[in-house]
Amino acid sequence: MKINTLIHITYDGTNLSGFQFQKNAFTVQEAIEHALSIIYKERVSIIGAGRTDAGVHARGQVANFMAPFFISPENLPHAVNSLLPSEIVVVGAEEVPEKFHARHDARRKIYSYTLDRAAFPQVMKRRYSLHVPESLDLDYMQKAGHLFEGTHNFKAFRSVGSPVTNTERTLYRVMLFDKLDEQLVQLHFEGDGFLYRMIRLITGTLIRAGKGVLTLDEIEGALNGSIEGVAGPTAPAHGLCLERVIYQA
Amino acid sequence: MKINTLIHITYDGTNLSGFQFQKNAFTVQEAIEHALSIIYKERVSIIGAGRTDAGVHARGQVANFMAPFFISPENLPHAVNSLLPSEIVVVGAEEVPEKFHARHDARRKIYSYTLDRAAFPQVMKRRYSLHVPESLDLDYMQKAGHLFEGTHNFKAFRSVGSPVTNTERTLYRVMLFDKLDEQLVQLHFEGDGFLYRMIRLITGTLIRAGKGVLTLDEIEGALNGSIEGVAGPTAPAHGLCLERVIYQA
Repeated sequence: MKINTLIHITYDGTNLSGFQFQKNAFTVQEAIEHALSIIYKERVSIIGAGRTDAGVHARGQVANFMAPFFISPENLPHAVNSLLPSEIVVVGAEEVPEKFHARHDARRKIYSYTLDRAAFPQVMKRRYSLHVPESLDLDYMQKAGHLFEGTHNFKAFRSVGSPVTNTERTLYRVMLFDKLDEQLVQLHFEGDGFLYRMIRLITGTLIRAGKGVLTLDEIEGALNGSIEGVAGPTAPAHGLCLERVIYQA
Repeated sequence: MKINTLIHITYDGTNLSGFQFQKNAFTVQEAIEHALSIIYKERVSIIGAGRTDAGVHARGQVANFMAPFFISPENLPHAVNSLLPSEIVVVGAEEVPEKFHARHDARRKIYSYTLDRAAFPQVMKRRYSLHVPESLDLDYMQKAGHLFEGTHNFKAFRSVGSPVTNTERTLYRVMLFDKLDEQLVQLHFEGDGFLYRMIRLITGTLIRAGKGVLTLDEIEGALNGSIEGVAGPTAPAHGLCLERVIYQA
């Protein structure tokens, strides 16, 4: 009998074409399935909790798969990592109930978006943050962030062409952390699910609020559908990181 | 009259062949001289404070050059950065006295060496730290580090083939910082100068002391020349970073 196995995955998305398998592209799913198929000597497919885009990072991605035979959770990550490129690291494994599904059972996800506030880009952080040296009203940004909390129709905050029809989502928390000692500002988004590019669109919107070119009223208008053209721009992928997937809310 | 100009340089050395110009290699010196030569419309040469090796990073490299004409210190970094690859960033400029020489006038340098202590490599830190998940006695490592402080003949702690004949150097401080919240350990080395691969050899030695395979007596023996074969191994370049160059001691 196959063993349903959960793995915790981290990756530096800089040179990756995202999580999900695509033809002729280097993705996390492909790299891990390739490694697992070598280890188990048969084709293994994984189910990821979140389909991160090209260039997006993860410190807390989760996936599950049906293991053809038992390998201890202590040994499995080492075996997989030995077959992965250095930008993808499996940091844990555990046996889970037969019916566990990494995507369907995920209750909440937490993403971070990191801004580099130094006058010049911090070179060792440039792959993981967006350089925004301009003056920002962080209190105002945090107030703007709180407007997104709750259950809203986020249809203005997704990329056009997205096939999803139900655009209602719940954001439990939008928090701004000012990491002064590192000259970073980090936005945390905790929600039950996110539309395509939703966090990057909200982040771009919050940055414009911080710069004083967008008011709280305008953002409220965008959220209730009374004002158009407020959302965005889409902040680039490299500032975004999947921090955590929560299975018990 | 030309204007002696100091610049502060940071770089991610991962894909660089070090600081100093070499034929058929991508170095910091070459990239910056190329940028300056475009800006000033004539050949400009720079003098770097420290010749970091291939793969070594810098948050505090310093160089000087004779500027053919005046560009304000506020504007110069932006102009240079617009012509540099993203892994090299000039973060400041200042006019200095005519006789200032970035290498000869440097009194002390501070380097850091970073160890990643997490069970699995922290993927967003892997380019800037050496993964050492094994148990380490950090107090013993700090004691071993203190043995290197002071003026010593460091001939056992340099790479063979180095042409330098005077191998006496002064290390003012060897400090270990346990950054528990980041699961990092950082070694700081402050000295008047360093022999070829000296810090990486000392770091390799300190890691072995931390693992319990080398005693303080053996290290003292290596330093006073009574025991051979103690130094090293040479820790890899990617954990090393030039943090600061000090001109007034």
